[in-house]
Amino acid sequence: MLSFDMIEYQNRLSKTKQRMAESGIDVLLVTDPANMNYLSGYDAWSFYVHQMLIIIIDEDQPIWMGRYQDASGAKKTTWLYEENIIPYPDYYVQSSVYHPMDFIGEILKQIGQGNRYIGVEMDNYYFTAKAFERLKQSLPNATFKDADLLVNYVRLVKSDQEIDYMKRAAKIAEQAMYKGTETIHAGVRECDAAAAIYYQLVTGTADYGGDYPAIVPLLPSGENSSAPHLTWSERKFKEGEAVIVELAGCYKRYHVPLARTVSIGKPSRKLQEITPIVVEGLNEVLDTARPGITCNDLEAAFRNSLKKHGIQKEARLGYSVGLNYPPDWGEHTASIRMGDQTVLQPNMTFHLIPALWFDNYGIEISESFRITENGCEAFTNFPRDLIIKDPFQRNQHGGIIS
Amino acid sequence: MLSFDMIEYQNRLSKTKQRMAESGIDVLLVTDPANMNYLSGYDAWSFYVHQMLIIIIDEDQPIWMGRYQDASGAKKTTWLYEENIIPYPDYYVQSSVYHPMDFIGEILKQIGQGNRYIGVEMDNYYFTAKAFERLKQSLPNATFKDADLLVNYVRLVKSDQEIDYMKRAAKIAEQAMYKGTETIHAGVRECDAAAAIYYQLVTGTADYGGDYPAIVPLLPSGENSSAPHLTWSERKFKEGEAVIVELAGCYKRYHVPLARTVSIGKPSRKLQEITPIVVEGLNEVLDTARPGITCNDLEAAFRNSLKKHGIQKEARLGYSVGLNYPPDWGEHTASIRMGDQTVLQPNMTFHLIPALWFDNYGIEISESFRITENGCEAFTNFPRDLIIKDPFQRNQHGGIIS
Repeated sequence: MLSFDMIEYQNRLSKTKQRMAESGIDVLLVTDPANMNYLSGYDAWSFYVHQMLIIIIDEDQPIWMGRYQDASGAKKTTWLYEENIIPYPDYYVQSSVYHPMDFIGEILKQIGQGNRYIGVEMDNYYFTAKAFERLKQSLPNATFKDADLLVNYVRLVKSDQEIDYMKRAAKIAEQAMYKGTETIHAGVRECDAAAAIYYQLVTGTADYGGDYPAIVPLLPSGENSSAPHLTWSERKFKEGEAVIVELAGCYKRYHVPLARTVSIGKPSRKLQEITPIVVEGLNEVLDTARPGITCNDLEAAFRNSLKKHGIQKEARLGYSVGLNYPPDWGEHTASIRMGDQTVLQPNMTFHLIPALWFDNYGIEISESFRITENGCEAFTNFPRDLIIKDPFQRNQHGGIIS
Repeated sequence: MLSFDMIEYQNRLSKTKQRMAESGIDVLLVTDPANMNYLSGYDAWSFYVHQMLIIIIDEDQPIWMGRYQDASGAKKTTWLYEENIIPYPDYYVQSSVYHPMDFIGEILKQIGQGNRYIGVEMDNYYFTAKAFERLKQSLPNATFKDADLLVNYVRLVKSDQEIDYMKRAAKIAEQAMYKGTETIHAGVRECDAAAAIYYQLVTGTADYGGDYPAIVPLLPSGENSSAPHLTWSERKFKEGEAVIVELAGCYKRYHVPLARTVSIGKPSRKLQEITPIVVEGLNEVLDTARPGITCNDLEAAFRNSLKKHGIQKEARLGYSVGLNYPPDWGEHTASIRMGDQTVLQPNMTFHLIPALWFDNYGIEISESFRITENGCEAFTNFPRDLIIKDPFQRNQHGGIIS
């Protein structure tokens, strides 16, 4: 069931250990599900309970620790020896008395790691304040170090196999955008368009199946299009409204996000005016992107393009993207924004989403791209423009279907 | 856009403040998205950045703090005055320099809360180890208290309106189970069945739209049915295999989970033998459930039923369920397990999932139910048995469609 060959996993592990050595970390506790998957192959919806992958700098194999009933999934999805899969009993789950970190700390002591330098992913969703407190209590002789994003930075440059998976995710994203936006008409409920999009994202193509995206499809419509992270409702689309559709195709946990703005009928004057400005800025960034320059330079390209039209944007324009689990498909490393001095390298992958939100409307037209040897390449091939729809659904004779 | 009337929100807030007073907490920092929604109505996929709802014991209104671009969603979805919606600038997002908790701590000091007793949800996914560290640094004169699950326990007994939403979620769950399992045949890919299920979950019914469930549909098949939390793959179902389908209908963030086991063709002898045992145990629990007894008593009913057949189950049998966001639809309060002394009251709601997993197969048949005045009532109406399918998809004349 492994998605990559063993050489690739070993390569990831050795890069991780190198960063551990540079940071003076002997033992790394990996709680980010994407990092767990990256290093071991582990893939299950079990991150709602405490679990981790333990990398010991002088041991060949990582150790998986998690809930008893999930050990079976760990055996099936990872390359680890069975003896390195150590489950905790079920009474540790969501208990007011026991905490999984008590168990994990005890095991770490038993295997002689209790007095070492231990790295923890301090700002990861799945490493809570209490997890850290209990771990510190359990390991009083350990020295804890912040290893947040240590593995995420190893993930920044993708392998060819990862790029191949992202290309498949891109096909799924394109298809979901086509078939999803096809359903958007006046009178259709937001949830029905969301269902059509979800169907395509999950069924994938005839050649490869889709995986669940780390963020649900977002499609705020009408006045809600000024609020980027609202999810769908039972509300019906209306003629003249705009709908923002942000989705990601996902293949083997690798994401390619794509956003477009749909106008149901004739776009408002404001939307007509702003669209070419956003597209021009987007193109400027894609024309600028190449190895050797920085994320900061990409942001400057967009800012200068926008400045000609007297518009400013404060929020970041994009972020590194790839392997992930809910609640975010972004990798939390490089951001396309002012001051980010990450130097671009071939096979870095980004979602560029220079969205603009105003008081009662917004626009999103995005591209996911990879840095190539001498420029960049968009993952998806979808018209980089507003999608203008006939407001009504029509039968084959052109009659309106109500 | 509010899902409940103001009296219900005020009632929730006053119960929360009462628990705060009992725990000696002046200021409660609510980071669990379900708790934020419960108290304020806030509903958006923005929990991948730091955000919170602040309840001050001697102030009428909570304060929402989150990312700048999400303030617009907070204005649209909550009952809060606009001046109580305080966004932080975008440069705080996923930055190696700035942290949103620095901003939030500073505001708390400015509004005179810097030296009070502050409750934090210590084991919530969205309150990371680093969030707590930065908050403590920012508020050196505050005294922090663990307020984990404080609001979750207020949520334990549902209102009639909440039960009504769960009944709608139940209809969605039933329909997704019918239409989803209809697609399961030998030769069909897991992802295609998952897509059919997802479509139904999101489109909902003609009367009300579906919302996204906090956990994706799980449908491990064949040998993978022994690993409960594996998600779908591109693998094709085979004749003679079992498929476990666990899903939840969701309406306005309220969940009703439902699990069934599907046999593609004639079930294995093991599955035939174990099914009536699980159903009998399930029925025993439902016959036992009533106000005044405890979760521990429910577990005992199941354990005694199983003991007759020489089978033991270690894992918990179920948990309180209702309002939630990814990554879990369980409420993390009452568990149906040995030693849980929660006394059942009318309108408590549970997902009873006495799953059994063996080395290379598993079975799940579950029911979500609410405690009534003198017993309990299942939310869904779906045959409480193995679903046995014709292994092949057939056309109207009975011919096999390959």
